[in-house]
Amino acid sequence: MPLLVVGSIALDCVETPTDRRDDVLGGSAVFFSYAASFFSPVKLIGAVGEDWPAEHTKLLEGKGIDTAGLEVIPGGRTFRWRGRYLPNMNDRETLEVHLNVLETFRPKLNGNHRDCRFLFLGNASPTVQMEVLEQAKGATLTVADTMDLWINIQRDELEALLKRIDGLVLNDSEAKLLAEDENLVRAGRKVLAMGPKFVVIKKGEHGAMFFSADETYVMPAYPTPQVLDPTGAGDSFAGGMMGHLASLGRSDPQALKEALAYGVVTASFTVEDFSLDRLEGINRADLDGRLAEYRKMLSF
Amino acid sequence: MPLLVVGSIALDCVETPTDRRDDVLGGSAVFFSYAASFFSPVKLIGAVGEDWPAEHTKLLEGKGIDTAGLEVIPGGRTFRWRGRYLPNMNDRETLEVHLNVLETFRPKLNGNHRDCRFLFLGNASPTVQMEVLEQAKGATLTVADTMDLWINIQRDELEALLKRIDGLVLNDSEAKLLAEDENLVRAGRKVLAMGPKFVVIKKGEHGAMFFSADETYVMPAYPTPQVLDPTGAGDSFAGGMMGHLASLGRSDPQALKEALAYGVVTASFTVEDFSLDRLEGINRADLDGRLAEYRKMLSF
Repeated sequence: MPLLVVGSIALDCVETPTDRRDDVLGGSAVFFSYAASFFSPVKLIGAVGEDWPAEHTKLLEGKGIDTAGLEVIPGGRTFRWRGRYLPNMNDRETLEVHLNVLETFRPKLNGNHRDCRFLFLGNASPTVQMEVLEQAKGATLTVADTMDLWINIQRDELEALLKRIDGLVLNDSEAKLLAEDENLVRAGRKVLAMGPKFVVIKKGEHGAMFFSADETYVMPAYPTPQVLDPTGAGDSFAGGMMGHLASLGRSDPQALKEALAYGVVTASFTVEDFSLDRLEGINRADLDGRLAEYRKMLSF
Repeated sequence: MPLLVVGSIALDCVETPTDRRDDVLGGSAVFFSYAASFFSPVKLIGAVGEDWPAEHTKLLEGKGIDTAGLEVIPGGRTFRWRGRYLPNMNDRETLEVHLNVLETFRPKLNGNHRDCRFLFLGNASPTVQMEVLEQAKGATLTVADTMDLWINIQRDELEALLKRIDGLVLNDSEAKLLAEDENLVRAGRKVLAMGPKFVVIKKGEHGAMFFSADETYVMPAYPTPQVLDPTGAGDSFAGGMMGHLASLGRSDPQALKEALAYGVVTASFTVEDFSLDRLEGINRADLDGRLAEYRKMLSF
C-alpha cells in the first residue's frame, strides 16, 4: 500500500563531541521516507529552495520514493537546522534554525497523494497538518508527529487535530508537556484520552512506549555500541513503523507491535552514522536480521 | 538454595515532590532480602544500632528471613539516609548520610552463612566486600553491587574484587564512570572485560541491560503509572534476580534472563509505595502474574 508523508526537508549541520558534518541531507520527511522505503512504496511532499542539490532528489528516487510532491520554491532557500549533541549523545541543543521556504509552504496534494491509504504528518504546525489531513481523502490510517513548540503556542489547534487522527508519535519530554504529567505511563494515557486511537512515546536511547485503549507496553532501543549521530532517529523509527503497516495494509494490535519493533530496529541503524549514511549501506535483509536478533533478545 | 546477602540496613527519610516519610525501613540488604524472600530462603548479614525498632526484625523474620547475622551494636546508631526525588521521580539528591554503625562494621559469617551457594554483596567498600567473599567458602555464584564513591576512591580494590566475582550489578551513571565511556553498550562491555562473567546495568525507569561474553540485551522497566518512591528499586531488582536464581539453583543464560525479568517485576512493585509498604501487600502469585503480563508485553 502506498504511504504518503508530508514533512520537512532540511540541510543539517550536526556537531557531536567527536565529529561534525555541515549541510548534510536531513529533515523529518527525508528520514521518514528513506526508512519507510525499505518496506513499502512512499510518496513524499515537501518544499526546498534553489540551493537544494539535485543529487539528494536522485538519492530518494533511487529508493523508489515518489518525489512528484517535492516542490522547489523559486528564489527560496532550503530549511536549515544546526544542532549539537551533548556527551551522552541523547540530549541535544539547537544552535540555529532557519525555516526559509517552510515559513510559507502550504502542501498541496495531487490525485495520487489523495489516494494513499496510509498518511504520516511529519512535525509541522497543527494548522498545516490539518490542511493536509483534509485533503487526504483516501487516508484510512493517519499518524502525526508534533513538537514542544506547537504544544506551547498552538495547543488548541493541536488538540483539534488529535481528535481527527488515528495515532500520535511524540517524544517523552513532549508527552509530559502535553499531558502536564511527569509520569510517562500516566502522560501517555492522558494524551490518548485527547482523541487518538494510539499514542507512541519515543524515548531516544531508551526505546518507545505504546498506548491504546487495551494495551500499554514498552520496547527498549536496540543496544548499539556505535552512536555517531542520533539526528533523524525518531523520524526513521516512524518510517520503519508506518512502512511496515503500509506493507501489511493493516494496523491491528499485532501489526502495530511488530511495526514498533521494525521502527526500533530501523532507528538503530540510522544513529550508527551521520545523515542517511548508514541506511544507504543496508538492505531489507539487514533490517530483518536485526529484528530477529531483537525478538530473541526480548524472549525469556 | 539459601541465598546470603550482606549489605546496609537503614532508617530512611524520603522526600518526593508530593509526599515524605521519616525514619522508614530501608537499606540495600533489607530491600534485597525482602524481595528475594518471595523466591528462596534468605540469610541476612548487617548491623544496626540500639535505636533499631524490634518490629523491623520481626517483619523480616515473618518472611522467613534468617536474621542470625543481624548484629545490634551496643551504643551504636543505625545507618541513616535522607534523600529527595526530583519531579521526574528518577533522579534524586542525597541530603544527609550518617554511616553510624556502618563506619566500623566488619561482617562475620557463621557456619550457616558460609554454606550458602548464592551470595550477594550489597553496596559497601570493596575492601569489606572482599573480606566477606573470602569467608564465603561455599559460594558458587557471587554477585556484587557498587557505587560511584568506591569507583572514585577505591578503584584498585574494586578492580581486584571484579576479578573474583561472577556478576556485577551497578547503575548507568556508575557504569559510565567505571568504564570511562558514555555509550552504555560499550561501557557494559568494558566493565565485563574487567573480570566478572556478567554485568547488569540498572537504568531506573528505563530498565536494565545485561552483558556476558555471548550476550548483550536490554529489558525495559515494567510501565507502572504509580511511582511513589523509587528508593530500594535497584536492591529489590537484585533481590528478585538472585532470589530466582537461588530458587532454580543455577545461573545459565536462560535462568539469568528470566531472573532479570523477575528483578524488573519485583522492582516495579517496590516503587509503587514507600519503603517496603507495597511489597508487604503482595505475594508470589502477584509477581508471577505481572511477569506473565511483562512477557506478553515483550512478545511480538
